[in-house]
Amino acid sequence: MNEQKLKIVIVGGVAGGASAATRARRCNEHAEIILLEKDEFVSFANCGMPYHIGGEIPDRGKLLVATKELLERRFRLDVRTRSEVIRIDRTAKQIVVKRLADGSEYAQPYDKLILSPGAAPFVPSMDGTNAGGVYSLRNIADMDRIRAAVDQAPTSDRKAVVIGAGFIGLEMVEQLVARGFSVALAELQPQVLPPMDPEMVVPLQDDMKNRGVTLELGSGIQSITKDAAGHATGVVLTNGNVLAGSLIILGMGVRPNTQLAVAAGLEIGRTGGITTNAYGQTSDADIYAVGDVAEYLTEPLGQSMRVPLAGPANRSGRLAGEHAATGKSAAAAAVLGTAIVRVFDFAAGMTGLSAKAATRAGIKFHCVTVVANQHAGYFPGATPITLKLIYAADGGRVLGAQAIGRDGVDKRIDVIATAMAFRATVRDLAGLDLAYAPPYGSAKDPIHQAAFTACNQLDGLGDLLDPDADLTGYQVVDVRTAAEIAKAPLTGCATPISIPVDELRDRLGELDPSLPVVVSCGVGLRGHVAQRILKQHGFAAVANLSGGATLRRRAVP
Amino acid sequence: MNEQKLKIVIVGGVAGGASAATRARRCNEHAEIILLEKDEFVSFANCGMPYHIGGEIPDRGKLLVATKELLERRFRLDVRTRSEVIRIDRTAKQIVVKRLADGSEYAQPYDKLILSPGAAPFVPSMDGTNAGGVYSLRNIADMDRIRAAVDQAPTSDRKAVVIGAGFIGLEMVEQLVARGFSVALAELQPQVLPPMDPEMVVPLQDDMKNRGVTLELGSGIQSITKDAAGHATGVVLTNGNVLAGSLIILGMGVRPNTQLAVAAGLEIGRTGGITTNAYGQTSDADIYAVGDVAEYLTEPLGQSMRVPLAGPANRSGRLAGEHAATGKSAAAAAVLGTAIVRVFDFAAGMTGLSAKAATRAGIKFHCVTVVANQHAGYFPGATPITLKLIYAADGGRVLGAQAIGRDGVDKRIDVIATAMAFRATVRDLAGLDLAYAPPYGSAKDPIHQAAFTACNQLDGLGDLLDPDADLTGYQVVDVRTAAEIAKAPLTGCATPISIPVDELRDRLGELDPSLPVVVSCGVGLRGHVAQRILKQHGFAAVANLSGGATLRRRAVP
Repeated sequence: MNEQKLKIVIVGGVAGGASAATRARRCNEHAEIILLEKDEFVSFANCGMPYHIGGEIPDRGKLLVATKELLERRFRLDVRTRSEVIRIDRTAKQIVVKRLADGSEYAQPYDKLILSPGAAPFVPSMDGTNAGGVYSLRNIADMDRIRAAVDQAPTSDRKAVVIGAGFIGLEMVEQLVARGFSVALAELQPQVLPPMDPEMVVPLQDDMKNRGVTLELGSGIQSITKDAAGHATGVVLTNGNVLAGSLIILGMGVRPNTQLAVAAGLEIGRTGGITTNAYGQTSDADIYAVGDVAEYLTEPLGQSMRVPLAGPANRSGRLAGEHAATGKSAAAAAVLGTAIVRVFDFAAGMTGLSAKAATRAGIKFHCVTVVANQHAGYFPGATPITLKLIYAADGGRVLGAQAIGRDGVDKRIDVIATAMAFRATVRDLAGLDLAYAPPYGSAKDPIHQAAFTACNQLDGLGDLLDPDADLTGYQVVDVRTAAEIAKAPLTGCATPISIPVDELRDRLGELDPSLPVVVSCGVGLRGHVAQRILKQHGFAAVANLSGGATLRRRAVP
Repeated sequence: MNEQKLKIVIVGGVAGGASAATRARRCNEHAEIILLEKDEFVSFANCGMPYHIGGEIPDRGKLLVATKELLERRFRLDVRTRSEVIRIDRTAKQIVVKRLADGSEYAQPYDKLILSPGAAPFVPSMDGTNAGGVYSLRNIADMDRIRAAVDQAPTSDRKAVVIGAGFIGLEMVEQLVARGFSVALAELQPQVLPPMDPEMVVPLQDDMKNRGVTLELGSGIQSITKDAAGHATGVVLTNGNVLAGSLIILGMGVRPNTQLAVAAGLEIGRTGGITTNAYGQTSDADIYAVGDVAEYLTEPLGQSMRVPLAGPANRSGRLAGEHAATGKSAAAAAVLGTAIVRVFDFAAGMTGLSAKAATRAGIKFHCVTVVANQHAGYFPGATPITLKLIYAADGGRVLGAQAIGRDGVDKRIDVIATAMAFRATVRDLAGLDLAYAPPYGSAKDPIHQAAFTACNQLDGLGDLLDPDADLTGYQVVDVRTAAEIAKAPLTGCATPISIPVDELRDRLGELDPSLPVVVSCGVGLRGHVAQRILKQHGFAAVANLSGGATLRRRAVP
């Protein structure tokens, strides 16, 4: 092997950098591969950090997945930690590296440069963010500081405020509650998990409240108050409320570390990440960007955007490493933004577009929501999943899905995300051959049920009304039994007419077939039966309330 | 509505019949819909029966999902139980029905006839199958009898023999063990779960043995012995062994109830089921067949065959009901044979072709097997899944998958089955955007790992050797640490050379680059690193043992 040594330099170990470096080595044994990392730890399991703080992962060492030593030994990487890259000189094809230990700088040439600097927690400009007890969670040092604060908080003062109800915010709420903290959660949007649709997260919010978490939704934060010693005492909201707490967690999202790229004149995309092609190359073909700093091609919109999640970071790193090392690789698949979070007993997951996002994008779409057990209802441990499908009004292409439940949420989201990778329609979902045995599913999976409902809607066999629809002007027929209605009346509706589905054929005379009708049941199944009966007995317009009284209660409390 | 009433007659409630009937009603309120059922119960959860016998579903009533009364009340079906159809007169478009209560017969005209008679347990011709204590499990009466026998068996005589190690057989083994029985399992094939590849089920077999189950694999049965009172005392195998037991469960598969169809001259397919088109129509367009009696179009072979599983039965029933009621429906999606079974703590699932089946079909294919945790290894509760992908040698189309593990098996099988519905390749699997949070998965899911390995193989970056390969003539290099090797030596290999992967670059001189090399590690990951090192240091032929020493031990004990 006499070829000149290819020099591959990777900036940042997390968020795809280490994946890029090890893949580059496996593809090119003879390249010189240098991995520069500003922090002490070159690769760690950042998704696991909340669980170490909460004690669910007691052993901190378990989070340090790929150590400097392992990467050097097994992959012959030149790993340089505490090394900050401060400039890229694209013309000379070299970068300037600052050793943080002594502040000295040196120039490092490259043939291929892979940028993986990740993202930094967003810290708002307001009073008090520099107070003691205020933390973001992005790296091991952050985690150690928060863990120490949690360990040391006296029994008499275990009050925390989490700002931001995204994934990390909710994980921190859960873990701080587990550590005996009284927790308040503040979120600017009027719901937790803002990427999801508001009615979907209601069970999560209710569960958190039942566990004693204070939810302050729909209000911004104004400042963090501190005591004479400079330690945080609480958070003042823009609505005037004050949330007391001496431990404040900022979970307000991240900003991509694009400074180097911007200074070097690399193209930045619409969402503030570095523009990349399917191989991870930036506007400079010898420079790649991967992970949280990059924009990926996303579906179903076909737009480039940042998706700061671990899965795409790993896969983009792997492909860029291969491409940098060999000049070729597979093209990256489009990213759907598939994500999941556990919050106490619930899992909440999503993929693709929410109804909110589809509306913003100006797409004509329909939604269907079903509430169905994760496995056979007659088998012990059956618990409901709420599954929402968003699909194109024209043709039924699946645009997105959201699910919430105690078990089996990840499976449904993954199945739908997989189908979406092939531009599936709801008709495709209806025909999926999924594994069924009573402990694992149903012969009619919740995905099938949602797809059947969507197909009925597309085929004119079952018009749907969204759970939050205005029911004014409709004859609203609640087809549940009187006992069910007494237990949980249909909300947001002044005068529903009660006719149990099994009596409907005999009581058609109580309704006016010339006026529009909405039928509603518990979750939508009997409603569909009632709808079919009415339609075929000459009723002009009959819609089924999607998700029945259950979803209505969440959408219109 | 003055149109003449369409007469739809459905023969058999289970295995798709009830789905057909209720769908037909929803699509056609005005049709006359008659559901004929030979048994007492028109629809029940047959997949739940083993769990009622075992006590895991204590309430028998939970299995009676759609009662005669409900179907009559809600769907206005004319449900006639204990009614056996004994003849079809296609010319007159009528059937002859026998009332089992009194033996009387009557002719019943139809416009559309839907056959859903299901399948009957196979009972071999041999001595003793009529002994007391010998049972098949197909309907509620069977279940009640077995449950009574289990309840009444004295503590001193709780010995059972299960014949047949398919899905039902294994479920019965599990449930009888739970009821305190000492259980022997006899299977003609040399493995449990014959549809799967033999090395895949080894952990299952080991676990069953550890739980005290006697496994008699690879031997047929010759007779059932009985005592003077005519009660079973055990099973004599063709290898001469005798398995003692007074409760004998026959789980030897089912035979489709095609007698009516055959007598009526309907076309029967290659696998003995009734031939159907995409709408469930038989060779007589006014007669449909659904469920266990029918053949479906299957993928990836594109052949028609029987797939006696609940999911396809339900979906085929639903579509046939719609088509019979309206003259149109969506076309049925191809069936993959996706299936799963729980056996004690393990789940075993599969979809598409096994390696055995692909070999039989004459397809050129490759396999890759990975052993990887179902969720982040650093998160509590991580347990390994063994996942095997079978894919076309030319182009990498996914032909099938099998998985075994304690958790997360259903998800992986469903994701791959979903991808297969779109004729996915392993390259597609590598790019799937799956939901990741530490409690639910990994940034690199086992599916990704398997797909990456397969892509490497297709791209010439990582030749694989099957776990059961003959290693004669290779330099076999075990790249694990000495401690790992001492704990679990590489099986089926006389003289492996021990060079830990991290030392390999410095010890290349110990190997002959002109001779073929096989590298092996624990599960295949380090083996791939070693393989890449050797290949790029001039070694001519280097293969990685798929699944490393772990799979080798299962394939070559």
